[in-house]
Amino acid sequence: MKIQRPTTVKSARITGPNQPLELEDADNPSPQGPQVLVKVAATGVCHSDLHLWEGGYDLGDGTFMKVTDRGVKYPVTPGHEVSGEVYLTGEESGGYSAGEKVLVYPWAGCGSCPACRAGNENLCDAPRSLGVFQNGGYSDYMMVPHHKYLARLDGVDPEAATSLACSALTAYTAIKKANANSPENMVIIGAGGLGLMGVQIAGAITDATILCVDLDEKKLEMARKLGAHHTLVSGSEDTADRIMATTGGLGADSVVDFVNVTATAKVGIDILRKRGNLVLVGLFGGSLNISLVTIPLKSITIQGAYTGNYDDMVELIDLARRGVIKPVISKRYPLEEANTALEDLRHHKIMGRAVIKP
Amino acid sequence: MKIQRPTTVKSARITGPNQPLELEDADNPSPQGPQVLVKVAATGVCHSDLHLWEGGYDLGDGTFMKVTDRGVKYPVTPGHEVSGEVYLTGEESGGYSAGEKVLVYPWAGCGSCPACRAGNENLCDAPRSLGVFQNGGYSDYMMVPHHKYLARLDGVDPEAATSLACSALTAYTAIKKANANSPENMVIIGAGGLGLMGVQIAGAITDATILCVDLDEKKLEMARKLGAHHTLVSGSEDTADRIMATTGGLGADSVVDFVNVTATAKVGIDILRKRGNLVLVGLFGGSLNISLVTIPLKSITIQGAYTGNYDDMVELIDLARRGVIKPVISKRYPLEEANTALEDLRHHKIMGRAVIKP
Amino acid sequence: MKIQRPTTVKSARITGPNQPLELEDADNPSPQGPQVLVKVAATGVCHSDLHLWEGGYDLGDGTFMKVTDRGVKYPVTPGHEVSGEVYLTGEESGGYSAGEKVLVYPWAGCGSCPACRAGNENLCDAPRSLGVFQNGGYSDYMMVPHHKYLARLDGVDPEAATSLACSALTAYTAIKKANANSPENMVIIGAGGLGLMGVQIAGAITDATILCVDLDEKKLEMARKLGAHHTLVSGSEDTADRIMATTGGLGADSVVDFVNVTATAKVGIDILRKRGNLVLVGLFGGSLNISLVTIPLKSITIQGAYTGNYDDMVELIDLARRGVIKPVISKRYPLEEANTALEDLRHHKIMGRAVIKP
Amino acid sequence: MKIQRPTTVKSARITGPNQPLELEDADNPSPQGPQVLVKVAATGVCHSDLHLWEGGYDLGDGTFMKVTDRGVKYPVTPGHEVSGEVYLTGEESGGYSAGEKVLVYPWAGCGSCPACRAGNENLCDAPRSLGVFQNGGYSDYMMVPHHKYLARLDGVDPEAATSLACSALTAYTAIKKANANSPENMVIIGAGGLGLMGVQIAGAITDATILCVDLDEKKLEMARKLGAHHTLVSGSEDTADRIMATTGGLGADSVVDFVNVTATAKVGIDILRKRGNLVLVGLFGGSLNISLVTIPLKSITIQGAYTGNYDDMVELIDLARRGVIKPVISKRYPLEEANTALEDLRHHKIMGRAVIKP
Repeated sequence: MKIQRPTTVKSARITGPNQPLELEDADNPSPQGPQVLVKVAATGVCHSDLHLWEGGYDLGDGTFMKVTDRGVKYPVTPGHEVSGEVYLTGEESGGYSAGEKVLVYPWAGCGSCPACRAGNENLCDAPRSLGVFQNGGYSDYMMVPHHKYLARLDGVDPEAATSLACSALTAYTAIKKANANSPENMVIIGAGGLGLMGVQIAGAITDATILCVDLDEKKLEMARKLGAHHTLVSGSEDTADRIMATTGGLGADSVVDFVNVTATAKVGIDILRKRGNLVLVGLFGGSLNISLVTIPLKSITIQGAYTGNYDDMVELIDLARRGVIKPVISKRYPLEEANTALEDLRHHKIMGRAVIKP
Repeated sequence: MKIQRPTTVKSARITGPNQPLELEDADNPSPQGPQVLVKVAATGVCHSDLHLWEGGYDLGDGTFMKVTDRGVKYPVTPGHEVSGEVYLTGEESGGYSAGEKVLVYPWAGCGSCPACRAGNENLCDAPRSLGVFQNGGYSDYMMVPHHKYLARLDGVDPEAATSLACSALTAYTAIKKANANSPENMVIIGAGGLGLMGVQIAGAITDATILCVDLDEKKLEMARKLGAHHTLVSGSEDTADRIMATTGGLGADSVVDFVNVTATAKVGIDILRKRGNLVLVGLFGGSLNISLVTIPLKSITIQGAYTGNYDDMVELIDLARRGVIKPVISKRYPLEEANTALEDLRHHKIMGRAVIKP
Repeated sequence: MKIQRPTTVKSARITGPNQPLELEDADNPSPQGPQVLVKVAATGVCHSDLHLWEGGYDLGDGTFMKVTDRGVKYPVTPGHEVSGEVYLTGEESGGYSAGEKVLVYPWAGCGSCPACRAGNENLCDAPRSLGVFQNGGYSDYMMVPHHKYLARLDGVDPEAATSLACSALTAYTAIKKANANSPENMVIIGAGGLGLMGVQIAGAITDATILCVDLDEKKLEMARKLGAHHTLVSGSEDTADRIMATTGGLGADSVVDFVNVTATAKVGIDILRKRGNLVLVGLFGGSLNISLVTIPLKSITIQGAYTGNYDDMVELIDLARRGVIKPVISKRYPLEEANTALEDLRHHKIMGRAVIKP
Repeated sequence: MKIQRPTTVKSARITGPNQPLELEDADNPSPQGPQVLVKVAATGVCHSDLHLWEGGYDLGDGTFMKVTDRGVKYPVTPGHEVSGEVYLTGEESGGYSAGEKVLVYPWAGCGSCPACRAGNENLCDAPRSLGVFQNGGYSDYMMVPHHKYLARLDGVDPEAATSLACSALTAYTAIKKANANSPENMVIIGAGGLGLMGVQIAGAITDATILCVDLDEKKLEMARKLGAHHTLVSGSEDTADRIMATTGGLGADSVVDFVNVTATAKVGIDILRKRGNLVLVGLFGGSLNISLVTIPLKSITIQGAYTGNYDDMVELIDLARRGVIKPVISKRYPLEEANTALEDLRHHKIMGRAVIKP
């Protein structure tokens, strides 16, 4: 079977802040060198797309951080959570053939900075992320700039897989960092979407006893079903004391704070065992006052987790393939309704996660 | 030559808080199993010995932390910086022979906790440190509980080597942690004894451009002689800005704060590059207010460094052997004057470092 | 409940080569320092016990390697696959309490050689293995020399667990080594007991496509049930070619040869991909002629796997706890019949694995 | 100062096997995207260039392996050891500016295979090496396909640096592999150019006692000057025994065989300590008969070393900068005499190493 090159590519593009997305046709897409043309199966609709569309972030202190100041150039095709299949390769195929199911790794970097050198393109000094600084997947066909940004996706539902490129990836790297000190007790703060994914991943990839903490007993019930060995309703003054008691007085070797506000981070610090490891994930803001002498004396580590590198994504795909995590898609939009999708997201009309199906 | 077992061992022992050290003779020391009797060449006089002698630490907030509450039992022979030579081994020699020059690794742990399992006895949950929880080196012969706590010391001056078991070890592990992210720019805050040792070590074991920061231009002059590529007088409001400029706007991949007070730690955080690494060493106290969202967004790490493990000490001995670091001893006391040594240390009469020579 | 110290310990001891084991009573066992007295639940009967009993190994070339030449001293209590519960601890408990279910790590080392330093006591220069150089578990109570040789066993059947200390441990470390180069294709040669365990472990801890090779189609059927993605009957001249075809011409990133005779090792070398990894496990003997220039040109690695370290054993216990591997015990002997057990093993009367139940 | 784009690029190109190299001018070189135009300072003349020119390798068994069968396409510009300075960058500069001194990393890979994913482009399944499969540095200006293939070279002589991209890189990675098991005793076989470089590197980056072995006492004298702790003339039947004696009967933790013929590799195997590590480097050929059971029983590793990855090259540049290794250039040719250079190399008229200076 000979693959026919599509004569046109249709994309929903952002032309400027808060402007309606425009459907645009481009002619004769032709992958050069290591480029790969991917036929899009589904593209996740993520809050970051909204920021790209709105032109930036309200930092909450009266200032607005423009994405154009960070290097975004309009028009741009959004969409960084893209699954699909290989349609055409350039002269360098990288071993990919037409028809292979793939997930696109979107966190492309410059290739030369220390982060890229270490294989962490997601932490690049001069990021070139797909769907942000380069065109993404709100499109029927997406031109991926290099075959190295593809990962094979056989055996995983392509719609569900979209989140593996972004939010689930953050949960995964957070648990991996928390596991670095071979914890006996791991505390997961927050049993929302990311936190519950963290519980499942921790059950699969660590040997730790998992204690999940949340304000909401119903969420904790779910955490227990998904593998938490202990749960504890937080919010009272003695939260740290009760966690300590649950760990037999040892404290937590590792804490993953998926909420990351002042109250939760403070509990996190207070329950850390000697050589403990506090991984902060949430982006809600706030600040924390830390005792400086405690950090060397207890030899503890405080660190952040944010998306992940290509290898992390491949490992995560494998966890999804084996059923360890099961992301669920609740809503689907055709490409022509990309505007509606973003509007719905802005107005909190999407429960769970949505994808665009071109 | 047959080694004669010494008929007695003379030790200067602490019998209780602030009591004069008592010279005590023990008969017929006989190493059992993996024990090794070491003939002491020199034992460093360290501030921790003073705390052991005074019975605890004044925390500065009106409370006094007793060492007996942490597991110390009097009488005990102090001295955790001990060099000497192997005198007698038990049935299990561990490959050591009489006459070998050794440095004693003092940070013995329980062997079973996660830290010990990972080879980090210095971070043990139930530490059994020599010269603190077990008898140390204020003695002419020291019974080391296991040959695994010995490291060969050929080619290094035994007196100078004593600090390699404690303070220099902290500087070394701090620089190693700072080097974990393969830094382009490393900032060392504080050009005192530890900081200058840090500069030398960083020059030897990292590929980083080293920027040393201190309030005192004279100390910085020394830092330049010892290998700092750039130096910068701190203390002004624009310290962070000037450091940023020195790094070409990139910021520091790693910062080692040997001072670790509010002002220095704040500079440390402010100049961190994405994926940066702040290592806190100093024990002066104070606190720092950190923005929680910055930590995941920039994917940074804040961690403490405190002494080091056995392997670190061996690596450090090798650096000393190759002349990378050159610790200097300024004062010597006979064992009979152990009391005077501690009194002198208490009253700041020791410039540099002192040892006891039994 | 106060634990009563047992007044006597009954052991079946080897007094000399091929002598009947003698039942011996020892009085008043009392753990000192870090020692722990374990009440034995089950002790695996392993071929190495037979060698200990027979006084050595027939090397097949007319020579006999005596175990006494390697440091064994009779009388000795055999048994290196020991599960049980903590009965009494010495002054240093290591955090263990009476009644805790444990598996004994038998591959004790000297503590000082480079292997022990690196946490690999199983590769010690001067091994002190329990049940070989020190007394083992053919006993109702076993004095374990240090609590660091215990691993918690809750949630795992104590009889089945015994093999986790020895044969299963070898399978596990072999697969771990084979996984070090993140293989796309892993070939497992030999679908016997160890090989099938290897298939299960590989399915659980690697992302590789697993191809199992054996002479016997029936065993391969079992391999498929246990998770092998492909199987292939070996023995023909084109075995290597057919394996190459199965991997799409890429070859195997890693090969684990559980048979390790000339024919299998040769196939292993022939199918290795650039940067490939050949792990040899079997002890059947034979030799292989290798082309020296191939090794640097293809940058391949050939390495052996033999038992494992303490951390490996703990990880393996966790795999057993999660049901990834399910060792089965087929025969049980009381302590008084230890002689019969060894005789039965010698005469191939034990199908599967046997334990002694004191 | 505005950099003027060169209007032409002059290259010496191979047009076919054994054809005289043709000087060719190309117009208006213009770097696109991540490409960088490098003004060449010096290009090493390496034996591999000769194979490229002769069309392949005589395998010594009557067969000739054609480079065109491995993917080479004529005409091609040879030269994979290239130093120079950045002249022009594309839109993506990767942080490089005109005038920066650089060494080109030539072992470019596909980017997608497991080796490339792991940062080991030198072990790529589908290599795209510069100066072999893509144009190299027999040229006054070289178009490097991506800024990630540049490494900063300040403080190192650009001519001497050329070998850091190829032969010295192999010596470096060999020693790194040999150092992985923290050897007490490292044996280096062969005191030729690579072996002596290995001795110097081993002295700088390992803590091992270094024993150098060669047939030639004069070369061993040089090895001692460069840091070997012991040397030993090989060639007699008791070579292995004498090496064992020198290591106090322990054997070698690691052996690096820069010769790699049957006799040397056999000595290498025979002297390996338990968990030992034999690194084969030389490409002289021959074969070795190994005892299969020894490999698991002693848990030893046999592995090859061949060139190195980008990070290795950067580390090696740093060693050169610090004077640890001092490569020497003995002959220089203008670009117009590239033919003569290759002819001289073919006829063994070059003592030491030569470069082309365009």
